[in-house]
Amino acid sequence: MRIDDPGMIKNAAGRMVPPEVNGNAQIAYKGVNKYISTSKRHAPSVASSANYPLDGNKLTSDLKDALVKSGLKNGMVISTHHHFRNGDYLANQIFDIAHEMGVRDLIWFPSASFPCHQHLIKYLEDGTIHHIEGSMNGPLGRFTSQGKMKGLGVLRSHGGRYQAIQDGEIRIDIAVIGAGCADSFGNANGLSGPSATGLLGFALADSQYAEKVIVVTDNMVEFPCHPWQIQGNYVDYTVKLDKLGDPEKIISGTTQITKSPDRLFLAELTARFCESAGIIKDGFSFQSGAGGTSLAVGEFFRKIMREKGIKARFARGGSNKYLVSMLEEGLVDYILDGQTFDLEGVKSMAGNSHHIDTSPFTSYNYHAKGNFAGMVDVVILGATEIDINFNANVVTHSDGYLLHGIGGWQNCLFSKTVILPVPLFRDRIPVIVDEVTTLCGPGELIDVVVTERGIAINPLRKDLLEAVKGSGLPVMTINELKKEAEKICGRPQKAELDKEIIAVIKWVDGTLLDSVRKVRY
Amino acid sequence: MRIDDPGMIKNAAGRMVPPEVNGNAQIAYKGVNKYISTSKRHAPSVASSANYPLDGNKLTSDLKDALVKSGLKNGMVISTHHHFRNGDYLANQIFDIAHEMGVRDLIWFPSASFPCHQHLIKYLEDGTIHHIEGSMNGPLGRFTSQGKMKGLGVLRSHGGRYQAIQDGEIRIDIAVIGAGCADSFGNANGLSGPSATGLLGFALADSQYAEKVIVVTDNMVEFPCHPWQIQGNYVDYTVKLDKLGDPEKIISGTTQITKSPDRLFLAELTARFCESAGIIKDGFSFQSGAGGTSLAVGEFFRKIMREKGIKARFARGGSNKYLVSMLEEGLVDYILDGQTFDLEGVKSMAGNSHHIDTSPFTSYNYHAKGNFAGMVDVVILGATEIDINFNANVVTHSDGYLLHGIGGWQNCLFSKTVILPVPLFRDRIPVIVDEVTTLCGPGELIDVVVTERGIAINPLRKDLLEAVKGSGLPVMTINELKKEAEKICGRPQKAELDKEIIAVIKWVDGTLLDSVRKVRY
Repeated sequence: MRIDDPGMIKNAAGRMVPPEVNGNAQIAYKGVNKYISTSKRHAPSVASSANYPLDGNKLTSDLKDALVKSGLKNGMVISTHHHFRNGDYLANQIFDIAHEMGVRDLIWFPSASFPCHQHLIKYLEDGTIHHIEGSMNGPLGRFTSQGKMKGLGVLRSHGGRYQAIQDGEIRIDIAVIGAGCADSFGNANGLSGPSATGLLGFALADSQYAEKVIVVTDNMVEFPCHPWQIQGNYVDYTVKLDKLGDPEKIISGTTQITKSPDRLFLAELTARFCESAGIIKDGFSFQSGAGGTSLAVGEFFRKIMREKGIKARFARGGSNKYLVSMLEEGLVDYILDGQTFDLEGVKSMAGNSHHIDTSPFTSYNYHAKGNFAGMVDVVILGATEIDINFNANVVTHSDGYLLHGIGGWQNCLFSKTVILPVPLFRDRIPVIVDEVTTLCGPGELIDVVVTERGIAINPLRKDLLEAVKGSGLPVMTINELKKEAEKICGRPQKAELDKEIIAVIKWVDGTLLDSVRKVRY
Repeated sequence: MRIDDPGMIKNAAGRMVPPEVNGNAQIAYKGVNKYISTSKRHAPSVASSANYPLDGNKLTSDLKDALVKSGLKNGMVISTHHHFRNGDYLANQIFDIAHEMGVRDLIWFPSASFPCHQHLIKYLEDGTIHHIEGSMNGPLGRFTSQGKMKGLGVLRSHGGRYQAIQDGEIRIDIAVIGAGCADSFGNANGLSGPSATGLLGFALADSQYAEKVIVVTDNMVEFPCHPWQIQGNYVDYTVKLDKLGDPEKIISGTTQITKSPDRLFLAELTARFCESAGIIKDGFSFQSGAGGTSLAVGEFFRKIMREKGIKARFARGGSNKYLVSMLEEGLVDYILDGQTFDLEGVKSMAGNSHHIDTSPFTSYNYHAKGNFAGMVDVVILGATEIDINFNANVVTHSDGYLLHGIGGWQNCLFSKTVILPVPLFRDRIPVIVDEVTTLCGPGELIDVVVTERGIAINPLRKDLLEAVKGSGLPVMTINELKKEAEKICGRPQKAELDKEIIAVIKWVDGTLLDSVRKVRY
């Protein structure tokens, strides 16, 4: 569809969204906490143990064998997870096999894709893969932005992906779950082996709801493989491969704090804001990403906590060696971890009972009876663009290219205080704009924007405005910040985009928040 | 219905079963591994986090408040678990409240009931409770046997209960889950507190599939309560009570090996059989109950394993101090535990990562993609009666009274070798009979009957007959065993039962295996 098509619907955020996507009817975004689903959870077929080997050994000869036994055929939805990040060998192999078998029109439903999946562009071109639902980082995003993918891209948050599977919005025919460690019954975890990823939470929903589930490992152990982050009782077939991925790229050997003075300043200012606002106090909780600036925020937190003798109850992660050392130092009681970013994170999760693996179900699923996100006191996130109503974009650049996934970003917006530390401009293009290119997060959920020139607090958060009065922090309005940037860079030209829609952005409740337009290239 | 009603159906085991039970159509038993379900899993309503407190605090003022908020009304299905065993205060309180509110015709769906629930008989009489689905140990079983319960009792195995909930054969309106330890969000486990039970696996299905879930604890801890054996994301309300139960009766302070010479002999003979048959070998696995004889079998296993330097890969339990000491001694690599029977079991599960909590899903659910039961090399079980076709009964006595639940017994029959050590007679009534009063387990799954006078091996197990040849063990046919008993006790009179049906026995796949008749009293 095109953005000016008369069938398009204006949603509660004023964004135009299509009435259906890839043949499925859609609900337009209705506002934060406004849409209450009345549907039922997806009900997969009941399995029978009569159809599975009594001794529990589900090992097949190879991945192709498992895919054939799972009934791989045209038009199926095939899911994978992204715990292997840019070191994943598995997803590419699945589609190599499908291509070799002459299977067509598959829908690939990864929890995220990475540059290593550029390999799949040829299958998008030759019809092996019809389209991708899932975040498309880098080359696949570029390909999609150029209008080359047959179906529409569907971008969901981590929690939104769990919700979509649970609610049957997408029905997975075959889930292929790579695991650092597994037994022949299909119990699996990511805690050991050459392809260790720490945890496998992104594949949890797939294991629970897919019709067929294949667990693939390069580290087959004797039953019982425990902890069973993935339960063999959900698994149809197991496969042993020589190598699941490139360990160097699965887990970064070294996470590094930024050395850039600008970013360090941004991080320090963010931490000082939290301190002044009274957020850093005994028993508090925080979440901060694995990017250079976020890591630096954590280190400034550590400094403040040490000085004041403050202990956090828990940190949500993305874990890394810095967070692990805070746990070991006793500065945080628990790490509630959704994704380990380095080997220290993996080791800690495997050995420290206070380093807990979570999943998008526990942490983020909006269609559950609550989740962990709202319990977090402060979350530090990034953004590509923020507008004067505090709406933010994390998926497209100002030139319109779709180059990033949503990740847990939307889900984290439900935390008690959401802070976006961003540079005032990137490559002389202001980050704060009149209107975001793509709406990923409604402004009412975004509380604070920290830039190197000043801090803007959402007027809805009168409590925060009050709390930092007299703190000496450079508090400004978001319009003032925008003007500040424009003084330096000039008023940016808005990218002229094609009217064709190439992807949609889902909100955490499954409704359509925005459409992503094709670029003119 | 009556056993001679023309509408009754003769199932594949030759037993008469009703076409419907409590208004729900039934499928008659078709044979082991013969019935393959074509249905879908139960699909509960999709929840929305918008309806739950964002800070995760779901604490209500008391149990009544939680029940009212959950919409307690006439005719609902209310579920509880039996981890508190005969020390449970919670189930009785629920129905006290229901009675006080004037709510009627409830269906109580416990994972098992105990003598302490005798309190509920008055509610069965006055119509607060319509009927019970779940095993009825002791007084409630007696009440039911006398034809006094309004609906039919439905007896399921632990795995069958998970299956029934998962498949929507029974739909729980409100699950009330008592927990030794919980946070206000509803994350819960049984690992600590005055009402610690070790684990909460019997409540897992309830938490996943009930429309409303209430977690009740006398030990509320700060978030996160971990491990979350029950996940708060499934929980609607939390309640703090002063006391969940009587710790002395929840967990026995002391599990004791039998001191009876007869039983010790039975245990030793069982262990010797396993040794001779080559079952006790490196990497083997076993399951043995918490009764005096079963415990003794474990101790004889220990002796043999020590002598021969044999290590088991895992023991399934029912854990107790004896099993825990085998784990600590290094004789078993893992305990895969479904129910802790003493404080040593609880402590071990809380502190030893090789003492793993399981659930009826992992261990027993027949309607999953396999389960653990079939992987166990040898299982030692009890029986009230065994017939000459190796069919066995565990629920009724020879006088027809329904006094025991099925527990995991049916599920365990899928283990590689099933051994029933039983005395040849009890109170001068032979245990081996022409035909069991109630069929709970098909003879084709029962391999060996060990009595103090001899061992009968199922003729289907030619391998076992071969393996123990020349071992000097007193191997006999089951008919010879029966004659032996009758020589001593005389041929028993079969109890004359009423024709009215008061309960049914489900097989692990949800089909009807047998009917239980009213007693003449």
